[in-house]
Amino acid sequence: MNDPKEIMRRVNALAKISEEADRLTRTFTSPAMRQANQLAAGWLRQAGMKVRRDAIGNLIGHYAGENPRSKILLLGSHLDTVRDAGKFDGPLGVVLAIACVENLHRRKIRLPFAIEVVAFADEEGVRYQTAYLGSKAFAGCFDPKDLRRKDAGGISMASAIENFGGDAAKIKSAATDPKQLIGYVEAHIEQGPVLEEKNLALGTVTAIAGQTRAKIIFKGRAGHAGTTPMDLRKDALCAAAELIMAAENLARKTDGLVATVGQIHAGPGAVNVIPGEAHLSLDVRHVKDSTRHAALQRLGQTALKIARKRGLKSHFEIVHEASSVACSTTLSGLLGKAILRRQKKWLQLPSGAGHDAAVMAKICPAAMLFIRCKEGVSHHPSESVKAADVKLALGVMNDFLQMAAEKYRQIHGV
Amino acid sequence: MNDPKEIMRRVNALAKISEEADRLTRTFTSPAMRQANQLAAGWLRQAGMKVRRDAIGNLIGHYAGENPRSKILLLGSHLDTVRDAGKFDGPLGVVLAIACVENLHRRKIRLPFAIEVVAFADEEGVRYQTAYLGSKAFAGCFDPKDLRRKDAGGISMASAIENFGGDAAKIKSAATDPKQLIGYVEAHIEQGPVLEEKNLALGTVTAIAGQTRAKIIFKGRAGHAGTTPMDLRKDALCAAAELIMAAENLARKTDGLVATVGQIHAGPGAVNVIPGEAHLSLDVRHVKDSTRHAALQRLGQTALKIARKRGLKSHFEIVHEASSVACSTTLSGLLGKAILRRQKKWLQLPSGAGHDAAVMAKICPAAMLFIRCKEGVSHHPSESVKAADVKLALGVMNDFLQMAAEKYRQIHGV
Repeated sequence: MNDPKEIMRRVNALAKISEEADRLTRTFTSPAMRQANQLAAGWLRQAGMKVRRDAIGNLIGHYAGENPRSKILLLGSHLDTVRDAGKFDGPLGVVLAIACVENLHRRKIRLPFAIEVVAFADEEGVRYQTAYLGSKAFAGCFDPKDLRRKDAGGISMASAIENFGGDAAKIKSAATDPKQLIGYVEAHIEQGPVLEEKNLALGTVTAIAGQTRAKIIFKGRAGHAGTTPMDLRKDALCAAAELIMAAENLARKTDGLVATVGQIHAGPGAVNVIPGEAHLSLDVRHVKDSTRHAALQRLGQTALKIARKRGLKSHFEIVHEASSVACSTTLSGLLGKAILRRQKKWLQLPSGAGHDAAVMAKICPAAMLFIRCKEGVSHHPSESVKAADVKLALGVMNDFLQMAAEKYRQIHGV
Repeated sequence: MNDPKEIMRRVNALAKISEEADRLTRTFTSPAMRQANQLAAGWLRQAGMKVRRDAIGNLIGHYAGENPRSKILLLGSHLDTVRDAGKFDGPLGVVLAIACVENLHRRKIRLPFAIEVVAFADEEGVRYQTAYLGSKAFAGCFDPKDLRRKDAGGISMASAIENFGGDAAKIKSAATDPKQLIGYVEAHIEQGPVLEEKNLALGTVTAIAGQTRAKIIFKGRAGHAGTTPMDLRKDALCAAAELIMAAENLARKTDGLVATVGQIHAGPGAVNVIPGEAHLSLDVRHVKDSTRHAALQRLGQTALKIARKRGLKSHFEIVHEASSVACSTTLSGLLGKAILRRQKKWLQLPSGAGHDAAVMAKICPAAMLFIRCKEGVSHHPSESVKAADVKLALGVMNDFLQMAAEKYRQIHGV
């Protein structure tokens, strides 16, 4: 099971399981997810694992360690997708984890710790406008209030879980015991262009960046585009443009900061009318929360200044905030060592996207292996990963398990 | 008829004639327009005028001069409106013109020239997505191809004209003989904030600004807002923001130039996705065509530069162009003299908006009297003009007619 072709075959097989006819969409507790779980369960068993499904629908394979009381190293990722998804985001991590265990199983190797492969039931949060339902239940931080959420068809999350064969009343039972865990390691496509830009197949993640989303509104005065001289205008779109420039400039000169205005609306929106109102979204991320907070404060002040200077009103509202989550330096160090065996350079990069590892990091050391994807594209059917990179990733993960076992024996004298 | 209250009453009476129940909308050849014409025809007759309607539906009142061969001075504006219109844009000019003639009629005064009051049937062009249908027919530059245009309900312009009682086949007959004309004078709300800002009720128009509309597209690369470092982005919205700033700056530093981005669209338009595409509208106006052309050329180059610097593609397309139209300095000078009698200052300002006077200027000297409107607002129910300003405007127009008559007698020895 060191053939990347088999891994690609499995990724492709999962990609065929969709709830939509002409594109890949596999959401939480859908029939497609049930089918994907059945397929993956077969691979888990084939890899010598005992398979279970928890109350929220996570699929877990257990590969026993050298003794029944062995602690557990978790490997995994998620099997759900966004709408019209690519095939690697999530599934590749699950399939790689299974392949690692299958290698041990074939060679009849037991490690001083058990391995559990977790295929999380929901990371993307498409069906219920949430995120990380699977890993949250697994990590014991699922919010029961979420069970009342309804999907687009009016089906509550509780009903969806029951219909899937889970147990909404017992989500707590899905929580694993942190004391039993050595750590969580997740392989995932980078979803960004950095590895490709550096001409590297693999890297490790230093931290999952914290994120702030803000909503900004400028209110000026609509007016006739022909009859209102420039000095009598209160053009809300010009104010918005100034803020977009300010956000870009600040991010460019602040190492590691990214700032994005992804949505803009100018009203009334006629060719010959000065915009009286502009609405913008702002997404700011950085691995250091203090840097991110400082950037937000700065941009909030900038919005005020722009509005004051132009005689407009401004509104700056934080609508979402998530702290940065650091990865385990120990686990990442071992991954890095394994990477250096097969690749000249060990690149450590932050993850600007969220991952199950961010949730798992709350209960145990967590690390991530990033795999280069074509042009950094993800959440799109054109998501693409080279077979050679997959082979390298599998090699690194195999080596990592060996090194982790050695280190574990050294420390614990087993 | 020097009571502004009566003029306001007439403006209000016209404002009640709408094709929509809860707002003022009166489009070309609509039943509402027929009713408005009937009302105005009564006022024309009351002012001692012979009333006729031409082939396209313009309403014309003729007040004879001292002899049957007298040349004609035209006074007028339009009776059609935009959707959800204010009540002054157009009708105020018609009602003021009628009031001037009524004053002459009551005092039994004949001038050395005839006066014709023209109430144009279409200036706003709402129904057929055109502009100036009425004045174009009157000035003999109506494009017969327009007759084939269809309105939202599929009714051709030809049918609409016939149904209204006009004669689509004889639009040419609506053309007046330029040799008979002394000039055209139109009173109109400013539709801008300049008079209000200068604390003046009235001003004259130097020229009706030329206008260019352009469509600009930037194409970059969409990407994940979290995982794409700033230096690897091709953010189309940032490019658009840079161009918006450039357009504003150029207009600010170029005397009399206005540049407006009224529409913007950024795609794909998700909070967490870098915009890969941005579409903008650009509206540029100036009384000097060469200044406007230079501005457009400059902004086109700027768009290219921005795109090149950022590694994007850009598209810059002129979609509409209208040359500047100068007003008659003679007629404007007489208006200015009349203004100076009643107002300390004679302000001469360009018109950024289009007017029937721009069409009429093709066949005879044309001038415009601008009347202050509240906050420069037009094309909106909140359009507002002070009764005192209307009184002043009427006084100025009465004086203007007297002065014009004197001047005409001097020149022509009649």
